[in-house]
Amino acid sequence: MAFLFNSDAARGAVFRQVFARELPNLEFYHCSENIDPDKVRYLLTWNVPDEVSRFRNLEVLFSIGAGVDQFKPETVPGHVKLVRMVEDGIIRMMQEYVVLGVLALHREMLAYREQQRRGMWQALTSSQTTERRVGFLGLGMLAHAAIDRLKPFGFPLAAWSRSKKVVEGVTCFHGEDQLAGFLMETDILVCLLPLTEQTRGILNAKLFSFLPMGARLLHVGRGPQLDQTALIEALDGGRLAAAMLDVTDPEPLPEGHALWSHPKVMITPHIASVTQPHTAALSVIENIRRHRAGKNPIGLVDRTLGY
Amino acid sequence: MAFLFNSDAARGAVFRQVFARELPNLEFYHCSENIDPDKVRYLLTWNVPDEVSRFRNLEVLFSIGAGVDQFKPETVPGHVKLVRMVEDGIIRMMQEYVVLGVLALHREMLAYREQQRRGMWQALTSSQTTERRVGFLGLGMLAHAAIDRLKPFGFPLAAWSRSKKVVEGVTCFHGEDQLAGFLMETDILVCLLPLTEQTRGILNAKLFSFLPMGARLLHVGRGPQLDQTALIEALDGGRLAAAMLDVTDPEPLPEGHALWSHPKVMITPHIASVTQPHTAALSVIENIRRHRAGKNPIGLVDRTLGY
Repeated sequence: MAFLFNSDAARGAVFRQVFARELPNLEFYHCSENIDPDKVRYLLTWNVPDEVSRFRNLEVLFSIGAGVDQFKPETVPGHVKLVRMVEDGIIRMMQEYVVLGVLALHREMLAYREQQRRGMWQALTSSQTTERRVGFLGLGMLAHAAIDRLKPFGFPLAAWSRSKKVVEGVTCFHGEDQLAGFLMETDILVCLLPLTEQTRGILNAKLFSFLPMGARLLHVGRGPQLDQTALIEALDGGRLAAAMLDVTDPEPLPEGHALWSHPKVMITPHIASVTQPHTAALSVIENIRRHRAGKNPIGLVDRTLGY
Repeated sequence: MAFLFNSDAARGAVFRQVFARELPNLEFYHCSENIDPDKVRYLLTWNVPDEVSRFRNLEVLFSIGAGVDQFKPETVPGHVKLVRMVEDGIIRMMQEYVVLGVLALHREMLAYREQQRRGMWQALTSSQTTERRVGFLGLGMLAHAAIDRLKPFGFPLAAWSRSKKVVEGVTCFHGEDQLAGFLMETDILVCLLPLTEQTRGILNAKLFSFLPMGARLLHVGRGPQLDQTALIEALDGGRLAAAMLDVTDPEPLPEGHALWSHPKVMITPHIASVTQPHTAALSVIENIRRHRAGKNPIGLVDRTLGY
């Protein structure tokens, strides 16, 4: 019985150490090593390998990232459990990045960056947090965690999700019918949706048109959710005042792309939240124990929903 | 008996309204109006007016800002109480700005800004918050408030102050003797000191030399505390990896100054924290009530310390 780590060697070394301590009876292999495919019960990977079917005894396929949109579930036998990465490191980094992004958009940091470039010293008027409504598209574990950190600042908080949810201190909207109403009351829109066929291209001209003039976008979902041309039009037309993007389509964003040099756009190279090997190893180990005890792993993917 | 508001008309209008409701028996004048100087018991101002001595019955001189370094206390009769502005608006804005600045420096936002300028998509390694030590120079009300908001993120927190203080969850240093030891354990240095003769020029080459290589500076104190030439040398030599400055010397920072275009410097035009008229009026009213009841106002300046 073996665990196969199919990712970079540096993180693999951390995993190996934690596994040796916590699950000494489970054989641990890095993808660079020779292994009998029949031994593999657990596989941790970013992309599903083409030859996944040769692991005939595979029981759980773990994503090394928070999303599983890179998986092609139809290539994985139906009895294999697909599991997203849910671990403290990812959660904490996303909390930091969302608070940083919301505060940067709230406090006009993109306009100040542009003023600095022009050598211009000029204070801009800024709303109070109590007048700046922050709305989350998506209300999964990462959004919950980010909301916890934002609460003390006093922003009115709202969220929209596919299915109905209730979160204390957050005005919750759900379903197609309530999307426009949610957007009309959102000054800073934070996208934390998973990428599915339903969310592909969701950040488009029509969606932007429901936002108040001068709204701001913080995109920490997935690149293909955003119509980048519509974004630039919304920025140039004033519908949006600023956007902070941690994801683009494609990634890396090509040299010379208009988003790189847009004065109202801040870009980071998909670093908002990165799996941290030590806490990720502990999380995967916990899930292996749950699986062996007949329980569902934390982060189990619903194949019909795609997340 | 009158209150004289010596600042801009817009904020004055808000003050007038709140005063009319809360202290209807106290006459309220804006500096643009004619007033019998003998009536003035309370004066709110940024600079001490040259003719302050004509207000023979002045009892309390309120600063409209959090600092009183712009006051020349020797021009104000000794029996007049000098009071700093302590109000919720200032505190909340400083909390936002310090969290924004610390997270921006922690998450390499200046390096990403520079990469964006060059059209470069490259993830940088980033420490965990638990390995990034944040140290406050100055431990007054604003530092306390900022520390409260930073605590949930997990940074190890320290502070240095002139006199001994104890704050839960914060490693406290004090006095000249402990300054070097404090600096040696600080990765992100936040300056929130008042400007006094002792703190003028305190952020200099010697101070920077005690910081670990690659430390970062968030300066939200006062411009004259920073030796800007030493800062540029520390950035170019690698002692400091980045600096975020909300204050400069002089202000506005002159056109063409080297700090404007330094890739490792982010500049905002003294907007970290701005007195908010509604909450400031309530705070001044509360202090007038305390003063009349024979209590010290909140924010009373110790003339021997200068803050």
